[in-house]
Amino acid sequence: MILVNGECREHIEVSDRGFQYGDGLFETIAVINGRPVFFDRHLDRLKAGCHRLYIPFPGSELLSFEAQKLSRHANNAVLKLILTRGSGGRGYRQPELIEATRVLSTHPFPDYPGSYKEQGIVARFCDTRLGLNPVLAGIKHLNRLEQVLARSEWTDSGIQEGIMLDMNEHVIEGTMTNLFYIKKGVLYTSSLSFSGVAGIMRGIILVLSHDHGIAVIERTFTKDELLLADEIFVCNSIVGIWPVKQIAKKRFPAGAGTRQLQVWLAQFQHEAIRGGQ
Amino acid sequence: MILVNGECREHIEVSDRGFQYGDGLFETIAVINGRPVFFDRHLDRLKAGCHRLYIPFPGSELLSFEAQKLSRHANNAVLKLILTRGSGGRGYRQPELIEATRVLSTHPFPDYPGSYKEQGIVARFCDTRLGLNPVLAGIKHLNRLEQVLARSEWTDSGIQEGIMLDMNEHVIEGTMTNLFYIKKGVLYTSSLSFSGVAGIMRGIILVLSHDHGIAVIERTFTKDELLLADEIFVCNSIVGIWPVKQIAKKRFPAGAGTRQLQVWLAQFQHEAIRGGQ
Repeated sequence: MILVNGECREHIEVSDRGFQYGDGLFETIAVINGRPVFFDRHLDRLKAGCHRLYIPFPGSELLSFEAQKLSRHANNAVLKLILTRGSGGRGYRQPELIEATRVLSTHPFPDYPGSYKEQGIVARFCDTRLGLNPVLAGIKHLNRLEQVLARSEWTDSGIQEGIMLDMNEHVIEGTMTNLFYIKKGVLYTSSLSFSGVAGIMRGIILVLSHDHGIAVIERTFTKDELLLADEIFVCNSIVGIWPVKQIAKKRFPAGAGTRQLQVWLAQFQHEAIRGGQ
Repeated sequence: MILVNGECREHIEVSDRGFQYGDGLFETIAVINGRPVFFDRHLDRLKAGCHRLYIPFPGSELLSFEAQKLSRHANNAVLKLILTRGSGGRGYRQPELIEATRVLSTHPFPDYPGSYKEQGIVARFCDTRLGLNPVLAGIKHLNRLEQVLARSEWTDSGIQEGIMLDMNEHVIEGTMTNLFYIKKGVLYTSSLSFSGVAGIMRGIILVLSHDHGIAVIERTFTKDELLLADEIFVCNSIVGIWPVKQIAKKRFPAGAGTRQLQVWLAQFQHEAIRGGQ
């Protein structure tokens, strides 16, 4: 089911700037028992993205209303929310009056095997590099060709995620996940000043680590530093936390630190769902 | 008038990857006397872009047929051709069988004053930087947020173009044009290995310069080097060549070198239109 500006339809105008230029933002939200999970956090990030791109935010109430309208028909599902600058303007120049287009759609929850969460996944390093751009770094915008090209590098179903480096050979994230590693009890994840998406699940893991007194360092690091990690995991709003059991033939344990974060996340998510967040 | 996969309609599917991820390419083509100008060159660039993004090229004959169908109703117009990876796939992962979506549309020819071509335009330096990404550099893909943000930096109608630098402070191009400068009879333009669009008009100017024995140097250069130029001009398929008469309070003449290229271009274009190219 798809809602375009509140109406049930499956099409958008060719003139929409989302189609013409990728001029917009999106959120990918887990729906559990008919309710969007961490929806407030997704709205906060969307609002921050609107601020960065000068797209008027349609308001939390309207988006919540439409999200609930779609989600209540689903049991477990994925809710995708796209917000574009709408139609109009002249070439790249935006119209004086921006009327954002909002598109909400639900999709089946992906049927990943339970082993991904328990024993971990196999990852590879992608050749496609993330460009460097501080203006776009962090936000979840619609310009996603880098991820599409990175994901097209492999078809082997034994590999679940590709790890992307930036132009400076820093490890940044997975094609659809953020990445963390643990070394001597300290949690590391890439800073996202020049590329990458500041994932909702990444943000929650930073909060959980802080609350439980785990030291976290956000900084750039290389492939070689990553491969010296004690544990590695990736995360996003749909899969939660997946340990990485192997990258580039090197094996890693789904260790105690990752397990502990999975437990804290499950509790945190349970409370959020109960609290209606 | 809009043709989507050969049918008259104004909508595309929400699921189209052009809308979801900016997963596609486009061409902006001048139509003069009902005929698309330099169409073969546009098709060649589109084909090169398809090769880079692994999108199947729909074939020159089909695209020519549809372009002519639209153009013959227009006298002078702009023809926009968008080609996307179509619908399907799972997230960023592309479908096994890609059925590209093609969208052709005509738009009124912009009513720029003749003075832009004759006396020149006023330009400014943009704050928005172009990201660095060799995989996407040169092709005219649909991930255009950088240009949208750069174009949103000014509303002063006395300024006609914004000049964009990359993350390394190299001058690359205008928001909707390529840029050249002339110094001591030599023509300079930025290399496009890490960012920028390899414009059709840029390519023609390189050919014309070569044919007429003008030395051309393609390399990176700074803002300071640009401001020491004897002449500066910008170009694209719709406006041809516009001298730049002023950037950042510094004035430049619409000099003999730029004039000469305008004359050669007019002849070349005239022959192309007569030859049906």
